[in-house]
Amino acid sequence: MEGYVPGLQPAPGQKLVKLNTNENPFPPAPRVLEAIRSASSDALRLYPDPSASLLRERAASLYGFDPSQVVCGNGSDDILAIVMRTFVDEGDAIAFFQPSYSLYPVLASIARARTVPIPLPRVSGPGELERLPVPCPEAKVFFLTTPNSPYGYGFAMAWIARLLSVFPGIVVADEAYADFARETSLPLLASHPRLIVARSLSKAYSLAGMRVGLAFAHETLAAEMAKVKDSYNLSGLAQAAACEALPDREHLRETTARIVATRGQFAARLSRLGFSVLPSEANFLFTVPPAGRPAKALYEGLRARGFLVRWFPTAGLSDGLRISIGTGADMEALARAIEEESHGG
Amino acid sequence: MEGYVPGLQPAPGQKLVKLNTNENPFPPAPRVLEAIRSASSDALRLYPDPSASLLRERAASLYGFDPSQVVCGNGSDDILAIVMRTFVDEGDAIAFFQPSYSLYPVLASIARARTVPIPLPRVSGPGELERLPVPCPEAKVFFLTTPNSPYGYGFAMAWIARLLSVFPGIVVADEAYADFARETSLPLLASHPRLIVARSLSKAYSLAGMRVGLAFAHETLAAEMAKVKDSYNLSGLAQAAACEALPDREHLRETTARIVATRGQFAARLSRLGFSVLPSEANFLFTVPPAGRPAKALYEGLRARGFLVRWFPTAGLSDGLRISIGTGADMEALARAIEEESHGG
Repeated sequence: MEGYVPGLQPAPGQKLVKLNTNENPFPPAPRVLEAIRSASSDALRLYPDPSASLLRERAASLYGFDPSQVVCGNGSDDILAIVMRTFVDEGDAIAFFQPSYSLYPVLASIARARTVPIPLPRVSGPGELERLPVPCPEAKVFFLTTPNSPYGYGFAMAWIARLLSVFPGIVVADEAYADFARETSLPLLASHPRLIVARSLSKAYSLAGMRVGLAFAHETLAAEMAKVKDSYNLSGLAQAAACEALPDREHLRETTARIVATRGQFAARLSRLGFSVLPSEANFLFTVPPAGRPAKALYEGLRARGFLVRWFPTAGLSDGLRISIGTGADMEALARAIEEESHGG
Repeated sequence: MEGYVPGLQPAPGQKLVKLNTNENPFPPAPRVLEAIRSASSDALRLYPDPSASLLRERAASLYGFDPSQVVCGNGSDDILAIVMRTFVDEGDAIAFFQPSYSLYPVLASIARARTVPIPLPRVSGPGELERLPVPCPEAKVFFLTTPNSPYGYGFAMAWIARLLSVFPGIVVADEAYADFARETSLPLLASHPRLIVARSLSKAYSLAGMRVGLAFAHETLAAEMAKVKDSYNLSGLAQAAACEALPDREHLRETTARIVATRGQFAARLSRLGFSVLPSEANFLFTVPPAGRPAKALYEGLRARGFLVRWFPTAGLSDGLRISIGTGADMEALARAIEEESHGG
């Protein structure tokens, strides 16, 4: 089998503007770093709380749920793996859009499960996406990356409700990028016991290095997942960090607003340069260079100029680039480099 | 299915001498806490190194291996789960001694694998243990907790070599407690490509709250496991902490020597009180109170006096107690409480 291929990590000391793995350009909230420093104490000799009670309480109260509906993961990849181990047996099938998060087929391969990839067209706007036919694959679990990666568009709550009414299995709304989107599927949990919403603190909370994911689900599904997860899957430091990060709504609002604003400006700039840009509700966008300018050559040219973006050597994706949204200055510098690449060649 | 049942964690503020989950009574090395504080920085916005290269180099060089022979886990529980996901399919069997680490049947249940538990007798010394017949169960993987938990005795390298020559599958030497033992099976790796040695930084390095486990294996097995593990299973902080912890041999030597010395004194004290004590090479010991004094009542009496030890409500184990080795003062206080329980009762 082939393992998951993570985005390139520059070697230490390598000076690159890193826009390839959708990290947040802003640092974590100061109170989060302070909480980690305080938790770096003699108490690390003790096992962490296996049920992450305080963190589950904070996450639940933030969205109006009960703590029994929350499961914590060592990143949302851990949440996805827990879903697989809990609900998918050898020979079962999982479904997902193609393209979407490339981890799903890797998890299926590990579980010896079958995959049902469903082609996802490129759409030009939310209206077109809402008219997308609701699939009903023969599968036990449907993994829906929303907002989608690498395309960036988010599925509307109404569309996800239709999916839940048609598809009889478990729907995992993989919402790693939802903090940058207009809608989340969380309100659907109240009336849909087959929905699991996976969240991450890696992107919007600038904590990719800390590994914290959350699952929200009906308490019956959550209880099954809690039995399957590693008992001590979240370190004491991760719990301390997440407990401080979640309540800091002001920091989240401010940093996501800046990223969303920069995303709009950068998309407009690319459009003026003749690039087609898919509508994005995430902290990245997918763009296809004008005819005659292959994406791969642009990727390599930008890399030589010190900018690392993501080019997928995959059928159906290799014509475009996925570019994470950095600071305004990052994107201004990148736009100039793209212009220079276009002219100088 | 039933999930794994971790040892009780006292509620915050509850004053208990906690001797139930084999934590180290001494704090982590100061340089480790310092490294975590330094790593609690803006860089947490970035994903950690998915291959934990520096940590794998340090772990490899410590024992004279190549980094390609090391896999890092989010605690050694993660290592055990990775072994299951990599090598054990639905319907396959895993073998282990009964009693040993109670996570194995839970992992088997998650994987829908069969279990072959092999009764482990109580022995009075290493000589008797070395004469223990080498089992050859029909199983894909043999999980050998060594030193055993809850009994505490460690299997000699020669015995493990015999197991490897008889049993045709993969042997996982689960060495969470090996730093307190006379021998480790690590030297066997050079000539046994079917051996995986799992290590933990939770016990000897006082980092239970940090979650770092290591696997040492032939590079072929290690490469398979690396494909199956979550890409980012170790946070940046966990990598930083472990990178500082491993080279601090002086701290390790000093704290383990104190625990081993205290273990001997406490065992002698229990023997004088008429308890039978199994020979231990771990940071805990298993003891059976004198006839007429049920272990459960003693467990409850000690708890009322502020001492939390482990009593297993399991057939074959419920006659004894597993007691973690704390500081000299902890064990002196516990010994007095046991005496008072015996007299006052």
